Amino acid sequence: MPKPLAGYRVVDFTHVLAGPFATNMLVQLGADVIKIEAPERGDTMRYYGIDEGYPDMAPPFIAVNSGKRSITLDLKSAQGKEAARRLVAGADVVVENFRPGVISRLGFGYEDCKKLNPNIIFCSMSGFGQSGPLRDNPAIDQIIQSVSGVMSLSGEPGSPSTRVGFPVVDTFSGAMGAFAIVTALLQRERFGGSQYIDVSMLDSTMVMMFSIVVPYLITGKRPEKYGNRGFSLSPTADTFPTCEGEITVGAVQQGQFERLCALLGCPEIAADPRFADKQSRIANGDALRREIVPFFAARTALEWEQILNEGNVPAGAVREVPEAINHPHIAHRKLLQTLHVPALARDVQVLGAGFRFEHDGPGNDLPPPGHGQHTREILKELGLEAEQSA
Amino acid sequence: MPKPLAGYRVVDFTHVLAGPFATNMLVQLGADVIKIEAPERGDTMRYYGIDEGYPDMAPPFIAVNSGKRSITLDLKSAQGKEAARRLVAGADVVVENFRPGVISRLGFGYEDCKKLNPNIIFCSMSGFGQSGPLRDNPAIDQIIQSVSGVMSLSGEPGSPSTRVGFPVVDTFSGAMGAFAIVTALLQRERFGGSQYIDVSMLDSTMVMMFSIVVPYLITGKRPEKYGNRGFSLSPTADTFPTCEGEITVGAVQQGQFERLCALLGCPEIAADPRFADKQSRIANGDALRREIVPFFAARTALEWEQILNEGNVPAGAVREVPEAINHPHIAHRKLLQTLHVPALARDVQVLGAGFRFEHDGPGNDLPPPGHGQHTREILKELGLEAEQSA
Repeated sequence: MPKPLAGYRVVDFTHVLAGPFATNMLVQLGADVIKIEAPERGDTMRYYGIDEGYPDMAPPFIAVNSGKRSITLDLKSAQGKEAARRLVAGADVVVENFRPGVISRLGFGYEDCKKLNPNIIFCSMSGFGQSGPLRDNPAIDQIIQSVSGVMSLSGEPGSPSTRVGFPVVDTFSGAMGAFAIVTALLQRERFGGSQYIDVSMLDSTMVMMFSIVVPYLITGKRPEKYGNRGFSLSPTADTFPTCEGEITVGAVQQGQFERLCALLGCPEIAADPRFADKQSRIANGDALRREIVPFFAARTALEWEQILNEGNVPAGAVREVPEAINHPHIAHRKLLQTLHVPALARDVQVLGAGFRFEHDGPGNDLPPPGHGQHTREILKELGLEAEQSA
Repeated sequence: MPKPLAGYRVVDFTHVLAGPFATNMLVQLGADVIKIEAPERGDTMRYYGIDEGYPDMAPPFIAVNSGKRSITLDLKSAQGKEAARRLVAGADVVVENFRPGVISRLGFGYEDCKKLNPNIIFCSMSGFGQSGPLRDNPAIDQIIQSVSGVMSLSGEPGSPSTRVGFPVVDTFSGAMGAFAIVTALLQRERFGGSQYIDVSMLDSTMVMMFSIVVPYLITGKRPEKYGNRGFSLSPTADTFPTCEGEITVGAVQQGQFERLCALLGCPEIAADPRFADKQSRIANGDALRREIVPFFAARTALEWEQILNEGNVPAGAVREVPEAINHPHIAHRKLLQTLHVPALARDVQVLGAGFRFEHDGPGNDLPPPGHGQHTREILKELGLEAEQSA
């Protein structure tokens, strides 16, 4: 069976992170994604400058642009416009993440594209969406982390505002973009017609925090910070120091709590009336933590991880990214995909989609494109001469 | 035009957060989602106990179960099994988030369901996926935050491991589940046949951190913490104190940096050779921050937000969730949906999908179901008497 999006063509005007992450998902699902880049300078992320030695091919660019084809087009020239028009006319999806209004001024807004292609799925991704008083504000990940409340939730009570240490807003918004696009393709497949999708990073981010936002909306109680205590607020769903490293335990249910105490060698804590049930443990949380902490010192985090899991108590050692991604489990899951990157003259590993199909599912082993690498090839497919777009 | 998933039926064995978030997306897109709950006690999240006064209807349950229908079935009884078999036979999608192996022992694994329905889309969601050495470990959000490296990324350099203060792993994994399901439905619509989807919270979480994980895989350099400095690592893409509140600025490009200095009233900083370009600003980041911080004290965060955005410098005041969700922009975006909840005898507000369609897009205004509220109705639809499943 073909991959889910086999035979679909995506015209990709996106750049930086959120948009390219969305279209990377579409690549993995089998779509032909054509990345439009400006002739003089391509996607900013090509030149992300922390790591030297990756000219036009910075690692985060490789992460989300592999398997795409790149064409350079000057969208302000007649030749560039003609090529883009032909691309849109033959495409299934157009995606863009310019500031609201820009793509229309370039002549490729939704209404323009619909004239070229009455069945087009058009997705705009932006910081605040295509409408509303904040629509024209420029936005990047950390701006949205600030205005959404994300920065107010992590850390101990009273601790300073803390950004989630990676661009989670970009990734979540990008995932929502890919999801919305596939949804619209399914709708078109079943019922026909075009669709316009408006992905707002701020809207997406409020949804990402639904488990905090909706309880606030319903109860009116201001959300608090709970440090490393989890959503259950159980004091034994928390992170504890050991003699080497930290261990996070997720003992929420009564049986889990009792097994945890038994395995730690402190069954008397489980028998203490102050900790008799979930509510009393939450009410006496500080005391419970004080009593239980010393018992973790007997072993390392990795030892506790094994002991507690064998005893059916959810537990995981706190790892850094290298130890996490190099864990044998990840290799077994085939989460990493190896690509040959000609510009680096070597193979690299990137990530798959994060979910697996039994057959004909996500995956890509093609390299990221050089800036404009496929210009000639794509123009030829469109019946145009390469010279025309110069 | 109908909604994208109109006419599809989803048999939903999920509970707690990640699974119900996934099927909530399917509800919003028009699917008929039937939530299977055990007769004695339903979805744990119904009884989430922080807020009193919400019997069987805790706020986070309302957040992601509205618009579903609930049937109570004893899957160990002959009658319960028969009802579930008929449900699966007539469904398009089965979703479950038990520990690996449990749903098969109950008689409703993928192979069982395929016999009942050769075109079934079957999605399993679990902590570590359906294969690999960690597959049998129990997992909740904070366990995955620990083992994945998420907890090692937030905060200032050298600061303790910090959980993202809301269950972001549940949400992101749930979004991946919904995305994978819709993708498989599209694949089936185009090419026919069944599909099995294996969503691993750990795999999804590594993908959520792609912008950290892939650069590590490619360069071999261990990821560091950068506090509130953003992905660009520019010292003027950071959070600054003001005379009232904090402001996050995203001045990454040269023009943005120069405009920022002009608007702050310190154009001389933009002219300082130590801060002449992006690389030198990163190299002299501490000095630049020291020089620039005092100028923010002249105004409040909300004032700077307005001034900087008007001057085309990305900026956002750090807000808490209540101020974020009550911002007029959110109302304008129609992100909130009002539902009447009979069990509470009042209206509540929940969140939409986080993306908008021009027509026939996501949305739901139906209440969350009581435990087993639709048992009789659904059994009748299946041609069974209500008594049979008791």
